[in-house]
Amino acid sequence: MAMQTFEDWMQSVQTTVEKALSDLLPPAHRLPESLHEAMRYAVLDGGKRVRPMLVFAAGELVNAPSPVLAYAASAVEMIHAYSLVHDDLPCMDNDVLRRGKPTVHVRYGEAGALLAGDALQSQAFVTLSRLDIDPARVFEMLRVLSEAAGASGMCGGQAIDLDSVGQTLTLPQLERMHRLKTGALLEASVFMGCLCGRFPVGEEAAALYAYAEAIGLAFQVVDDVLDATADSATLGKTAGKDAADNKPTYVSLMGLDESRALAEKLRRDAHHALSPFGGRADRLRQLADLIVQRSA
Amino acid sequence: MAMQTFEDWMQSVQTTVEKALSDLLPPAHRLPESLHEAMRYAVLDGGKRVRPMLVFAAGELVNAPSPVLAYAASAVEMIHAYSLVHDDLPCMDNDVLRRGKPTVHVRYGEAGALLAGDALQSQAFVTLSRLDIDPARVFEMLRVLSEAAGASGMCGGQAIDLDSVGQTLTLPQLERMHRLKTGALLEASVFMGCLCGRFPVGEEAAALYAYAEAIGLAFQVVDDVLDATADSATLGKTAGKDAADNKPTYVSLMGLDESRALAEKLRRDAHHALSPFGGRADRLRQLADLIVQRSA
Repeated sequence: MAMQTFEDWMQSVQTTVEKALSDLLPPAHRLPESLHEAMRYAVLDGGKRVRPMLVFAAGELVNAPSPVLAYAASAVEMIHAYSLVHDDLPCMDNDVLRRGKPTVHVRYGEAGALLAGDALQSQAFVTLSRLDIDPARVFEMLRVLSEAAGASGMCGGQAIDLDSVGQTLTLPQLERMHRLKTGALLEASVFMGCLCGRFPVGEEAAALYAYAEAIGLAFQVVDDVLDATADSATLGKTAGKDAADNKPTYVSLMGLDESRALAEKLRRDAHHALSPFGGRADRLRQLADLIVQRSA
Repeated sequence: MAMQTFEDWMQSVQTTVEKALSDLLPPAHRLPESLHEAMRYAVLDGGKRVRPMLVFAAGELVNAPSPVLAYAASAVEMIHAYSLVHDDLPCMDNDVLRRGKPTVHVRYGEAGALLAGDALQSQAFVTLSRLDIDPARVFEMLRVLSEAAGASGMCGGQAIDLDSVGQTLTLPQLERMHRLKTGALLEASVFMGCLCGRFPVGEEAAALYAYAEAIGLAFQVVDDVLDATADSATLGKTAGKDAADNKPTYVSLMGLDESRALAEKLRRDAHHALSPFGGRADRLRQLADLIVQRSA
């Protein structure tokens, strides 16, 4: 394999995933156009594609074929995109800006956004059902993705978030919320990538779990730091909302410097966890760096 | 097998499914309680369980084991229940009464209802991932259920419904909307039941498709008739809403008598379709009668 810079690798994954997503979403010209357009608007042409990159980087550890990774990555990204659409609704965060564009409900109405989100969640599972690999492998992916998306993962975390507005959380409570709300799907991305090939066992499996946990948490700590320090134009979404909404964050609980130090510690934990893989895990290391050192 | 009356059989399926649903939903006492309570409120203690009964009746054709049918039926019912929760939201039908109880958003707030619906959709797929059968069979169920739930099924139908408020639909357009909105999941119930055993082939497969299509459409025609003729107390939901909301229905398009005649024709079509199965399909015949002759 020719050596590729991290930037070239990211670009190549993003291009591959964008194409797969476009193919896997219902075409905009087919009835009902309004729904299909809203689904495509919510998913295509935007986002950093952190989860798809985790799928691909983990998949490279196990020599998984790129077309299979593209499907798995698309399924994860559809779940992520649907959660943003519903999160932005007036009854939730009531946000009007996402990825630098008007949110889906601003563009397609509340009912349209509700349905587009619902259909995107289904489409993630449709995508798994189109995988042309050993059904036993798909069965495992189904378990990983559905658990990460639902009450024991992302939805559960959002419910805790909702219940905790105006409350004072302890640090363990905050961590628990984020491990579900953001961490579960990031962790699932790593496992989905590995399931596209032969899932590691023993020490290597433990290494992956430790890595996934560290970056899952790091992502949210950095999100909180950015929400407190960056401007909306840089973020592509409304900055300072968490503080304005009186939501507990790492910054409100630990302060800015401690939060940054925690993120850096988690980045080092992630690197350390990967030692059993040697150089094979360099992309995962670079993604840990990207997650912690990003500015948006 | 001892002969069982249809009423006893229905009661027994309902009891089995209620128990399975209760076991498969997250316990109310586990964090986040608010989410788990709302999910359980939306699903348990209510509904006619038409879809689960279709799963069981179809499963009996292929001698499928009852515990497997209970999981498949629960997965379908969770999709159905989530769709009701989201349908009732203020941005959709804005309904306050469902199954004779306050709707989920009245009880748990809009954000709580949104999340409960989202988590119920995930939980349907979690349920499939817990099936202890040949993964190839689960793979097929995943395809059937996700397609029926998403843009090519229920969500697609709801989007057409949304787009058609205040419009005049032709009869084929109305039929297309309902085939997706209600028919897809009813049809999927029949196929899910068969996938719990050995799916029929040839003439029998064609018979099942014809049966599923007929009852899927019949259900909606009867729904429209009941919406126009029954009162809210009988329906357990707000009656007359479709007309009030200026939605196209079979009754508004064909009139009451023609709608009733169409439902009866579809009932006979369903019976006729089942002839290759002989007496083995009696439960499916009785369900076709139930769907058309119900009063709520």
